[in-house]
Amino acid sequence: MKLSEIVRQLGGQLAGEDVDVIQVAPLDIATVGQIAFLSNRKYTSQVSTTKAAAVILPENVDVDYAGPRIISANPYLYFAKVSTLLNPIPEVKPGIHPTAYIASTAKVSPLAEIGAFTSIEDGAVIAAGVVVASHCHVGANVVVQQQTRIKPNVTIYEGCQIGERVIVHSGVVIGSDGFGIANDQGRWVKIPQIGRVIIGNDVEIGANSTIDRGAMADTVIEDGVKLDNQIQVAHNVVIGAHTAIAGCVGIAGSAKIGKYCTIGGGAIVLGHLSIADRVNISAGTLITKSIKKPGTYTGIFPFDEHDVSIKHAVQIRQLGRLADRVAVVEKLIKQEKS
Amino acid sequence: MKLSEIVRQLGGQLAGEDVDVIQVAPLDIATVGQIAFLSNRKYTSQVSTTKAAAVILPENVDVDYAGPRIISANPYLYFAKVSTLLNPIPEVKPGIHPTAYIASTAKVSPLAEIGAFTSIEDGAVIAAGVVVASHCHVGANVVVQQQTRIKPNVTIYEGCQIGERVIVHSGVVIGSDGFGIANDQGRWVKIPQIGRVIIGNDVEIGANSTIDRGAMADTVIEDGVKLDNQIQVAHNVVIGAHTAIAGCVGIAGSAKIGKYCTIGGGAIVLGHLSIADRVNISAGTLITKSIKKPGTYTGIFPFDEHDVSIKHAVQIRQLGRLADRVAVVEKLIKQEKS
Amino acid sequence: MKLSEIVRQLGGQLAGEDVDVIQVAPLDIATVGQIAFLSNRKYTSQVSTTKAAAVILPENVDVDYAGPRIISANPYLYFAKVSTLLNPIPEVKPGIHPTAYIASTAKVSPLAEIGAFTSIEDGAVIAAGVVVASHCHVGANVVVQQQTRIKPNVTIYEGCQIGERVIVHSGVVIGSDGFGIANDQGRWVKIPQIGRVIIGNDVEIGANSTIDRGAMADTVIEDGVKLDNQIQVAHNVVIGAHTAIAGCVGIAGSAKIGKYCTIGGGAIVLGHLSIADRVNISAGTLITKSIKKPGTYTGIFPFDEHDVSIKHAVQIRQLGRLADRVAVVEKLIKQEKS
Repeated sequence: MKLSEIVRQLGGQLAGEDVDVIQVAPLDIATVGQIAFLSNRKYTSQVSTTKAAAVILPENVDVDYAGPRIISANPYLYFAKVSTLLNPIPEVKPGIHPTAYIASTAKVSPLAEIGAFTSIEDGAVIAAGVVVASHCHVGANVVVQQQTRIKPNVTIYEGCQIGERVIVHSGVVIGSDGFGIANDQGRWVKIPQIGRVIIGNDVEIGANSTIDRGAMADTVIEDGVKLDNQIQVAHNVVIGAHTAIAGCVGIAGSAKIGKYCTIGGGAIVLGHLSIADRVNISAGTLITKSIKKPGTYTGIFPFDEHDVSIKHAVQIRQLGRLADRVAVVEKLIKQEKS
Repeated sequence: MKLSEIVRQLGGQLAGEDVDVIQVAPLDIATVGQIAFLSNRKYTSQVSTTKAAAVILPENVDVDYAGPRIISANPYLYFAKVSTLLNPIPEVKPGIHPTAYIASTAKVSPLAEIGAFTSIEDGAVIAAGVVVASHCHVGANVVVQQQTRIKPNVTIYEGCQIGERVIVHSGVVIGSDGFGIANDQGRWVKIPQIGRVIIGNDVEIGANSTIDRGAMADTVIEDGVKLDNQIQVAHNVVIGAHTAIAGCVGIAGSAKIGKYCTIGGGAIVLGHLSIADRVNISAGTLITKSIKKPGTYTGIFPFDEHDVSIKHAVQIRQLGRLADRVAVVEKLIKQEKS
Repeated sequence: MKLSEIVRQLGGQLAGEDVDVIQVAPLDIATVGQIAFLSNRKYTSQVSTTKAAAVILPENVDVDYAGPRIISANPYLYFAKVSTLLNPIPEVKPGIHPTAYIASTAKVSPLAEIGAFTSIEDGAVIAAGVVVASHCHVGANVVVQQQTRIKPNVTIYEGCQIGERVIVHSGVVIGSDGFGIANDQGRWVKIPQIGRVIIGNDVEIGANSTIDRGAMADTVIEDGVKLDNQIQVAHNVVIGAHTAIAGCVGIAGSAKIGKYCTIGGGAIVLGHLSIADRVNISAGTLITKSIKKPGTYTGIFPFDEHDVSIKHAVQIRQLGRLADRVAVVEKLIKQEKS
């Protein structure tokens, strides 16, 4: 694809020769036919030595490079769009694999693609342009809307709803029972989980993530939410539109996460909390109470060389005593002065 | 179902009109035909405005509500039981799906239900009333006892034993090899994992949890244990009866967890520890040594606005110096006084 | 197997009667025909009372035991090798299960074993001696090299490469899309993930772990790496040879982990970091910056009884104030002295 054609479709400003590019690549390993980008100015020095055929550059960057280039206000976003042009998602191949099992009352669009050994249970609806790859279980009365792509080995429990253009990666479980138990003199009694999972449009769910169905009302993932791998979303959680959550995050029951939030990897959000819109939670942080104002929130215990760190732990245990000692000293000084 | 019929089966005290209810719902969204409950008195004000057909109330609650109601000492438990009456688990449909594969020496009860594309390997025993849903792998010589329900996409390695009335959710792996390796001059040598996983009765295991087989002896999950999603149970762990563990918890090898314990989400229990009966571990807590007394144990680093939190981390690194400074001050004051 | 035959194959020094052993077992539960070992001297007292037929002992141990024994410099490693002799991995049974689906252009060695309901997509190559168990999805153009064992329910996305003698446990997902998104005025734009996952020889990957494909370049797991269960490896991570990682660890994008490292359970390594060779990271530790020197690194917030721990959290929030108070005291004393 010629740079001029890219600029025609995506905007930006072309400078230098109008070369052809066939793939994207990082600055330091790009080669013939590849287009690289400079997003983080830390890597500016790589531009002058890159072997890329062309580079996407930010405005007003001071760089020794006169080769083919596209100037963009947001090179990383521009690169994302170029890569999407050069790497379109595979076309849907409508049809049902001969080994798949479709229950008699399931409705599968003739424009959908169903993979090997996939089972679509009674009453399920699979819309046009959907791909359900191999080894998936689509439970009774599940609805999967158009152009959604479900990768191999995904399980969707009965009654759940998946929006349009959603991507669900392998190993994901949607609609399993929430962890609802009541204590009866030491023994646990299971509470039937009768809600559903409702997933909006343009959501992506990473490999082996789990989203539990609601206890009574539904668990809701709003439009544009992006979930990385191995995320646990408990029953009755609501994740607001366009929130992005990194891997290994756990969100406990009935937590309400706002819109346009980000949550770093390994963070835990306790149950029955509300997180405002536009909140950023740092990786590894445990959120123990509601957050009402936008901003970045962090709780990271510092790591250190082992022996040093062990001392920190001891000192934390002695903090109360240290504060008491300071109070005694303060009192003594006050007495002396009076 | 009439309230009087519910009271006949479950006890409690009926007051107001003996109406019919068909479903449970939360106080704030319940409507015609639905029964709600008041468990946490924080929500008492919702009772007077609820549109529920009936409410389960605690004893001695001061509430402006004269509608149909059931008085119970433990409304949450009562609600759990009402919901179970109104939402019985689906009946078993005995039979083997035509796409399933049953090895010639496997013994599947004619009263069991086997789903699409499920494989039952040689020597496995599936008892009466069991459901093994679609896409499951039941390894050689596995025993699944009566009335257990195994959801789609579950893997059970050879030789493991599952008790009665167990529920295993999708994506669970039971009996995979424990992480047993011995170091040989920098390289790791695998130690064969020849134990099994033994799961008691009335256990529930959440989606994508993993329970490793023992290295030599067995990994044991006792009766009534409830595990949420994405829990990792390493080899030779023993989890005592009626313990409940929330999502994303990791339990390292050979840890022994007591009976009637609870473990909050995202906690980690290190290996070769013993946790006494009736211990509660808070979410996000790392347990680094044995706990010998019942009680609640916590280790939560507080989160804060990012800039504030970063300062806390710096201050923790300076704790030793701060303590030294206090000691100097104490010494100076002592000198002055003498 | 006679002890003399074991010593012939594995070295070590035989003492006492040359008995037959058929299985390994721990000292405290071993019985007739079983061989136990003493690795941690904490358990020395168990040797004199063991019912084991034979014991593997370290050199120079002071123990009251005159029974059949093998003396080894490293009893744990010796035991691992004895167990491997007594518990050889099951032989490959070459052949394709009649329910499996092999795409027309896939190349499956006649010496490979393919399980029930497994699909091998176009262009995939399965070498001799490989076992792909039931319910696996082997994507297009995947290469699996000789003697690798893939357990049931594994998903390998298109184009990934698996080395020789690798073991992949159930529920593992290899090659799912990395979490690559660019922000466009609040909405997230997906970045195509066009790299692969390349896995070396002698790697083991635990149940339900996930390894994402690279964004542009590849994600690489080098030879001899051992991964426990539920580990998340993000796009473009490189894990150096012979590194061992315990369960529930998350490694964020583009992190480079050195060779011969160990990472404890539940640790999180942030993205774009470098960890030197021979680094040990403690369980539950959050690594927020690169580590350049070998050694052990820890960041563990201490747990305590709940009420005590809550006070620690409060005190951490007041650390700045405490430091200020100490500074005031120091200044007052200095003034007095002058």
